Amino acid sequence: MSLAQLQTYLQTNQIDWLFIPRSDEFFGEYVPICNERLQWVSGFSGSAGIALISQTSAHLFVDGRYTIQAKQESPKFKIHPLSEIWSVIQRLITKTLTVGLNFKFHSRSFVEQLTSLGLRLQHLDPHPIDTLWEDRPQLPSSEIFPHPIKYSGESLTSKIHRVIAALPKQIDSLYVHDPHEVAWVLNIRASDLNYTPIPLCRAIIHTTGETELFLNNSNISAQLREHLGTKVLITPMDQLEKKLTNYLNIQIDSSSSAYDQKLLLNQAFVFPSPILKMQAIKNSTEIQGMRTAHHLDSIALKKFIAWIKSQPIESLSEIKSAEKLESFRKENADFRHPSFPTISGFGSNGAIVHYKATKQTNKPFSSNGLYLFDSGGQYPYGTTDITRTLTFGTPTPEQKQAYTLVLKGHIRLATAIFPKGTTGHQLDALARTDLWQLGLDYAHGTGHGVGSFLSVHEGPASISPRANNIPLEPGMVLSNEPGFYKANAYGIRIENMMVVVESHHNGFLQFETLTKAPYENALIDQELITSSERAYLDSYATFIFS
Amino acid sequence: MSLAQLQTYLQTNQIDWLFIPRSDEFFGEYVPICNERLQWVSGFSGSAGIALISQTSAHLFVDGRYTIQAKQESPKFKIHPLSEIWSVIQRLITKTLTVGLNFKFHSRSFVEQLTSLGLRLQHLDPHPIDTLWEDRPQLPSSEIFPHPIKYSGESLTSKIHRVIAALPKQIDSLYVHDPHEVAWVLNIRASDLNYTPIPLCRAIIHTTGETELFLNNSNISAQLREHLGTKVLITPMDQLEKKLTNYLNIQIDSSSSAYDQKLLLNQAFVFPSPILKMQAIKNSTEIQGMRTAHHLDSIALKKFIAWIKSQPIESLSEIKSAEKLESFRKENADFRHPSFPTISGFGSNGAIVHYKATKQTNKPFSSNGLYLFDSGGQYPYGTTDITRTLTFGTPTPEQKQAYTLVLKGHIRLATAIFPKGTTGHQLDALARTDLWQLGLDYAHGTGHGVGSFLSVHEGPASISPRANNIPLEPGMVLSNEPGFYKANAYGIRIENMMVVVESHHNGFLQFETLTKAPYENALIDQELITSSERAYLDSYATFIFS
Repeated sequence: MSLAQLQTYLQTNQIDWLFIPRSDEFFGEYVPICNERLQWVSGFSGSAGIALISQTSAHLFVDGRYTIQAKQESPKFKIHPLSEIWSVIQRLITKTLTVGLNFKFHSRSFVEQLTSLGLRLQHLDPHPIDTLWEDRPQLPSSEIFPHPIKYSGESLTSKIHRVIAALPKQIDSLYVHDPHEVAWVLNIRASDLNYTPIPLCRAIIHTTGETELFLNNSNISAQLREHLGTKVLITPMDQLEKKLTNYLNIQIDSSSSAYDQKLLLNQAFVFPSPILKMQAIKNSTEIQGMRTAHHLDSIALKKFIAWIKSQPIESLSEIKSAEKLESFRKENADFRHPSFPTISGFGSNGAIVHYKATKQTNKPFSSNGLYLFDSGGQYPYGTTDITRTLTFGTPTPEQKQAYTLVLKGHIRLATAIFPKGTTGHQLDALARTDLWQLGLDYAHGTGHGVGSFLSVHEGPASISPRANNIPLEPGMVLSNEPGFYKANAYGIRIENMMVVVESHHNGFLQFETLTKAPYENALIDQELITSSERAYLDSYATFIFS
Repeated sequence: MSLAQLQTYLQTNQIDWLFIPRSDEFFGEYVPICNERLQWVSGFSGSAGIALISQTSAHLFVDGRYTIQAKQESPKFKIHPLSEIWSVIQRLITKTLTVGLNFKFHSRSFVEQLTSLGLRLQHLDPHPIDTLWEDRPQLPSSEIFPHPIKYSGESLTSKIHRVIAALPKQIDSLYVHDPHEVAWVLNIRASDLNYTPIPLCRAIIHTTGETELFLNNSNISAQLREHLGTKVLITPMDQLEKKLTNYLNIQIDSSSSAYDQKLLLNQAFVFPSPILKMQAIKNSTEIQGMRTAHHLDSIALKKFIAWIKSQPIESLSEIKSAEKLESFRKENADFRHPSFPTISGFGSNGAIVHYKATKQTNKPFSSNGLYLFDSGGQYPYGTTDITRTLTFGTPTPEQKQAYTLVLKGHIRLATAIFPKGTTGHQLDALARTDLWQLGLDYAHGTGHGVGSFLSVHEGPASISPRANNIPLEPGMVLSNEPGFYKANAYGIRIENMMVVVESHHNGFLQFETLTKAPYENALIDQELITSSERAYLDSYATFIFS
């Protein structure tokens, strides 16, 4: 009874309200089990959410994709839309009450907003849950291994020099709070998390060329020491704070935590990190690695599609299919692990955008249903992410029309030529306009950046309706994943990965598609396909067997 | 010799550098002649630019569309791209020098940027030019007349109540610094400017329901007094500052001048004005008025096209054509004046996006040339803006291809259906994608808002690559004007006005085209036209004669 335990704790310690966010101090999409505080107290297993608990009540704020799941997983919590968090806070919390939170888990803007409401905030570090959670696992400390030059294409020394050169003149040191960025700069990887091969670490890069790498892990191999060289100093994580406060003219990212920014209030310059964009623009080695990863991934995909189409339909289920897909990927010795939790949804479950099959929801397949699967793999030379939608039995005309409209948008984006300087918010509608003309749409972005043996979701560019002022640049890898979802009926999504390349038209760019797996021919309404779309489909059919 | 005069003044008064922007304290696109300070000192007549003058040198910063013109008109000035203003300032001005400017003519962000460079700023009010300019005209004080309910569709009382209801709770008074917004709220118009029918005025709206209208003009008709009623108090403009500083909890727009914001530093709340968006969403009376204005405008357009096509080509020139077009508009007694300076460009002049024919540049027509004309009218019930491109003689295949690609983009936008919440940055690429696929583009936005017997360029929505988080809403009127320009050869632009309307698909919007004038059939490559584009062209051909 974690909730009851926590509420007793709040009583004993005279804390009126307590925030428990899903994120930990590393702000990543995936958190280690020991930091799944929100799940511990509420049972909610989604990837985003925040709980607000008093001595007598419990509230959970989640976004639209998690409303149903939160109600099922957290029956003792009142579930609110995340968009209403500020009005609910204002209604619930009066100014005389004490509000506990660990500033390390929250963004600066979140804490500033709470402060502007006049609330009495109390920084709790460690977070109360860390004290109450009896069998709390240890922080992971998997072995950190070098990401060799044959995969990274650029030495850590070269990367550090590029980062230093990108800093404003007045800066002497850059605090890198995001472990993904540290992993990219230092060419290191690890297995601290299930889906993203990074160590939970931080760094301070000095313009002198020296870098301090902060780790919880004290077990450093000789190979890693040699890789890091003499200018990277490994330092225990618990010294980070003392070190940070010692430096002057330090640059900190505006997306780092409220705690960090408060700590460095008087000495730090807040600018966007120069690393994220460097990391997003893959070099030729990384692009070639991405091509290889997608080629090997496609072997598993093609085997899986052949297998699933040959099985008796009544023998198939969502979990069984997902496991089989992973087993085909595992046949390649370079496959490390999935790049995110596989989405395997049959029929109405396919309409749940972030569906994760569980024993309770696991749907057996039946005829006349669509099957949507969205999965990816981590390979040392690249990260993959692919979605296909298959039909079992005869699709309805409505299903064929919807699939074909999604495919037309997918092709329009895949074949788009656009001038340098174009941002993702300009391109997003190309993937939607065919759906829009029939009053259809999908409630998610069209494309996200993907890391190189890093996170499957990477900034700073994206292809989405949301304003994003980062232009697409050659070397950026992005997904192309329009969809259509009919609630309680079926879901359709088609997703390939693409890399931005120069166009033969001077000053223009285009995409090169990386993913190689067949579309579902039985779902294509040939009447709706134009001659140029037909040409794309023909050349793609050749490409996937190249 | 205005420049020499000014430089002597700077010497005498020990001012090292002086800024002369094109804008005056009203920040509008058009300024009265008495405020054309930049033109007085430099000769430059463009609609945007800023001069920086020392005792011995003179610099003029203009954007790309004005580079050539500035060099011609301002031979004594060194011309810089506007984008380089900050690096040039840093290079030219050292910290010990005195920099003069009138804070009333500059945005807050401009002055803050100067301050952050550590410059010693001196607020000069009146601006030195006002003192030196001997035959400087008077501030205009044209008669202010009511904009009656039959055109506005909503009483000023109702508008004031809506504005007050939109203010945050802590606000007692709203300072409306933009004369367009004042004109909209109070349903008043005037002829202070050449192209926009507004009085140069300001207002303070109090949540009590009372409004102070600040005017330079003391000549108020009985009709206007009656129209304004008892709750609108007319006050001389020179009392504005004293009044403003008397009020507490006053709201000021972040786009008002650096001077205003400094004046109200300690007592004002800076929020976006609620008026601009209200003004942009036209009511049914205004939309009907727009339809009427466009219908009457189309009569002039059709007469003009018939006339120009029937003339011996050697008899035509850019200025003659523009005058003839205006004379056809004048045949309608309701036509007040053009809504902006007519662009009338033949051949290579058509490739200059903001071209204004002068006696020096006035091109005679010849065969095998394209003619681009962009013009509009102010009618009491609506404002128009239309561009057409005509061919004389046989167009080249390249010209036909370019015109057809522009037309395809224009049609794609005109017929787009899109979900509620869509912003203009999402739609812009629809008008470009056909050009992009052949490596072509145009260096301007696709659509701007248009006022109702107000400015032909109105925010807050637009259809442009630039991020704009204002969703399109039913009642907004926007232009649809893709183009293509081949420098030194020809220019193509096709522009219609459209109003955003509900779609028959629930939750979706679309456009209703307002402008009625034929496209240039001789420039359409029928091979490139799809069947749905053909259907649009057929129905448009019927519509223009409806």
